[in-house]
Amino acid sequence: MPIHTDRQFEEELNELRQRILEMGGLVEKQIADAVRALTSRDRTLAEATIRKDHTVNRYDVEIDELCLRLLALRQPAARDLRFITTALKITTDLERIGDRAVSIGERALELAGEPELKPFVDVPRMAEISSRMLHRSLDAFVHEDTDLALDVCRSDDEVDKLNAQIFRELLACMVEDPQTIGRAMRVLFVSKYLERIADHATNIAEMVIFMVKGKSIRHIEELPPSV
Amino acid sequence: MPIHTDRQFEEELNELRQRILEMGGLVEKQIADAVRALTSRDRTLAEATIRKDHTVNRYDVEIDELCLRLLALRQPAARDLRFITTALKITTDLERIGDRAVSIGERALELAGEPELKPFVDVPRMAEISSRMLHRSLDAFVHEDTDLALDVCRSDDEVDKLNAQIFRELLACMVEDPQTIGRAMRVLFVSKYLERIADHATNIAEMVIFMVKGKSIRHIEELPPSV
Repeated sequence: MPIHTDRQFEEELNELRQRILEMGGLVEKQIADAVRALTSRDRTLAEATIRKDHTVNRYDVEIDELCLRLLALRQPAARDLRFITTALKITTDLERIGDRAVSIGERALELAGEPELKPFVDVPRMAEISSRMLHRSLDAFVHEDTDLALDVCRSDDEVDKLNAQIFRELLACMVEDPQTIGRAMRVLFVSKYLERIADHATNIAEMVIFMVKGKSIRHIEELPPSV
Repeated sequence: MPIHTDRQFEEELNELRQRILEMGGLVEKQIADAVRALTSRDRTLAEATIRKDHTVNRYDVEIDELCLRLLALRQPAARDLRFITTALKITTDLERIGDRAVSIGERALELAGEPELKPFVDVPRMAEISSRMLHRSLDAFVHEDTDLALDVCRSDDEVDKLNAQIFRELLACMVEDPQTIGRAMRVLFVSKYLERIADHATNIAEMVIFMVKGKSIRHIEELPPSV
């Protein structure tokens, strides 16, 4: 664990951890609600999810300000410095995950007015995995746990596979019945948004590893068994 | 202009500006090459563009380290602090724009092996606008120019409109001839990647406004005439 010069600074860092987890919780709920709005064709829920974006953005600005305050007043060194600059980057990822949840809500609204394509199976599954990746990446951050972070990076493959599978299925569906193209495309976009969310979670996990180990595992061909 | 305590710090900040512009230039070239590989069905260029990703990622890590060094050793206050933390966030956006250029290169490779769909008109136009937005957002950053940054935010609409237009055209194309679906989808993805690139440029511009003015214009319904 990092060594801190005073008690108050430690409390401020805890506040930062807490705020990041709260923002993560909000965003996780936003993803779950957006996908539920899609699968249950619930316009009201879709609209509520879209409106929730303001709260997420407020968190983003507030956490940024907290980080700037800590950097200016506490002039942290080494590990604490890395922790705070990583927090700064993480809020950007969380805010953008929120944007993707809004996009899912928008597609849910559009699809609610059209005949059903087919029951959603892979999309909720993909949402679940992505959301779990997000949750674990933030746990990895607050506990500075690189094993957990590596685990998150590994899960990204599973999401990519599901995305490819959804792509193939919808393609077949469109070829068979061109009437479905408009709807299938919207579902496909949802699948892409979820893939992006998993990417953001992976980015967070990579930043955690960089924060703790000071080395980048980004874009190496094969993930190491441990770091 | 910010006031600095010493000459060396000013030089280090200039180095930071310079490195960000270099990374931006690399990424702009990556976008242009990827789109050219697509339109001219040039596999070699597509592969070269994909490989270029390593250079972009090296810049990302190096600029991050430079920022951390400046934060730790110079303990900057107020405006300089904001400048450096914004630089930290910008490198992440640039790195991800590079990832999107790689994705365009991958689609270019896939499409090079298939019969031509139709001549590309809107895609290169969209790439041009997005690339210009990126260039101007970085100019806005190094010159702390909020008017220019606002201008970038305004251009985002144009890209969204082109994206919607490409979507409609490809949809029509797929409905008319289901044989084209696989190819049309790939072009559609390219259009989405370019839209994401424009979003990243807009994010950078928004961060520049936040850096200079200390207020967020993110997610307000209408852009103000000036900030």
